[in-house]
Amino acid sequence: MITIVKIGGNVLDDASALAEFLQLFSQWNGPKILVHGGGKLATRTAQNMGIEAQMVDGRRITDQAMLDIVTMVYAGLTNKQVVAQLQANGCNALGLTGADANVIQANIRPKTPIDFGFVGDVTPDAVQATQVLKWLSNGITPVFSAITHDGNGQLLNTNADTIASCLAEALAQLADTQLIYCFEKKGVLRDAEDETTVIAEINASIFEQLKAEKIVHAGMLPKLSNALNAVAKGVKNVYIKQAKDLLDESTGTRIC
Amino acid sequence: MITIVKIGGNVLDDASALAEFLQLFSQWNGPKILVHGGGKLATRTAQNMGIEAQMVDGRRITDQAMLDIVTMVYAGLTNKQVVAQLQANGCNALGLTGADANVIQANIRPKTPIDFGFVGDVTPDAVQATQVLKWLSNGITPVFSAITHDGNGQLLNTNADTIASCLAEALAQLADTQLIYCFEKKGVLRDAEDETTVIAEINASIFEQLKAEKIVHAGMLPKLSNALNAVAKGVKNVYIKQAKDLLDESTGTRIC
Repeated sequence: MITIVKIGGNVLDDASALAEFLQLFSQWNGPKILVHGGGKLATRTAQNMGIEAQMVDGRRITDQAMLDIVTMVYAGLTNKQVVAQLQANGCNALGLTGADANVIQANIRPKTPIDFGFVGDVTPDAVQATQVLKWLSNGITPVFSAITHDGNGQLLNTNADTIASCLAEALAQLADTQLIYCFEKKGVLRDAEDETTVIAEINASIFEQLKAEKIVHAGMLPKLSNALNAVAKGVKNVYIKQAKDLLDESTGTRIC
Repeated sequence: MITIVKIGGNVLDDASALAEFLQLFSQWNGPKILVHGGGKLATRTAQNMGIEAQMVDGRRITDQAMLDIVTMVYAGLTNKQVVAQLQANGCNALGLTGADANVIQANIRPKTPIDFGFVGDVTPDAVQATQVLKWLSNGITPVFSAITHDGNGQLLNTNADTIASCLAEALAQLADTQLIYCFEKKGVLRDAEDETTVIAEINASIFEQLKAEKIVHAGMLPKLSNALNAVAKGVKNVYIKQAKDLLDESTGTRIC
């Protein structure tokens, strides 16, 4: 079973939580892939350089200056610090963007209705799954940052959740694959304020109920929708769970 | 024959010279590796962030803030822009630091007589040459930035010329290997002001003569010394030549 783990920004922003998570990830048995998002370091770096986030209709866009910063921070500092820590833990990590070995090509997002700038949209068929499998079978652990390219020399800022689900769906065509979204909460909660209200299992019909009852809050909807889609496309299991519970199978929310 | 090409900062700083060089490099036949240095972008980024270069006895040191910047710029922005351009040229590039797949481990430089901070010294035996060969035989072109690690989670700023010569010496144990240092001049010049005075060939005894006659200027001495050392360690040919002459075998200086 190939396992793809996506780690979110809140864990990346906390050095000791990140170190603890990378220890757990290194202990995970079997072929595995890490996908990491950004965290606040890119925003802080932009501020330090006097570059302001460009917003359109309240949504952040990636102009040239911001693309350079996310490439520096995500593909440079964060990715290489994670790789070096994993190597220290005995995990043979290889840091990647989609441009490296042309492993994930993206299309720049259409400029209407909103021009988001240098943002890439990916689909599972744009993943070079055989190259990824080759690395896994050589004992290498790919570590993806959320940067891809268009194949014509343009780097693109890309959603890390989507990279994780596209990787999972592409690999699921070739081998048993599961996907774990790690974040700071214990799972999908019935009551966002109460960590004891983890919903153990969500399927398509439960998802519809939760939406109808407005139990699941806005930020979780695309994650769950993505997860259900991945299951429909052949991914065996999708989990949403707390980073520090990575190795504890009894925790989190299972999407099936 | 495996070819390792090192490209210097002056070419990296000039977008059109870089694009032209990457075209030529993409056209190079046979297994190849690119090693790139830094360029002025790291210094400019540090200035933009209000970080001053720390100097000891007139020599730059790599403190934590500067390490973060060179990791962002060398391993992030520069490396990924180069990889994306090579991919656009049909060259299957894979961007790397020494930490990725643990391919080059370095030792932090001893703190006496000068503490250079997070600077790594590498030797050919610290190169995982079989991993590099595996990539080459899979049609992948490794692209190294000048960042390594110590194997204990610490990234290290490392001289790109030395990375290139260590790679060449390590690979020379397993396959025929040559090394090309590309920079902005036409080769090693008898008269630094006159590009028609390229010295076509330098061996150990010619090198001693040039030193005795003070014909070779200070900046070129370590490069030539490195090059002669690489030849002594089994590297077939070492060339020092202009980036735009990469494919023209009749140009530059051959060290043998």
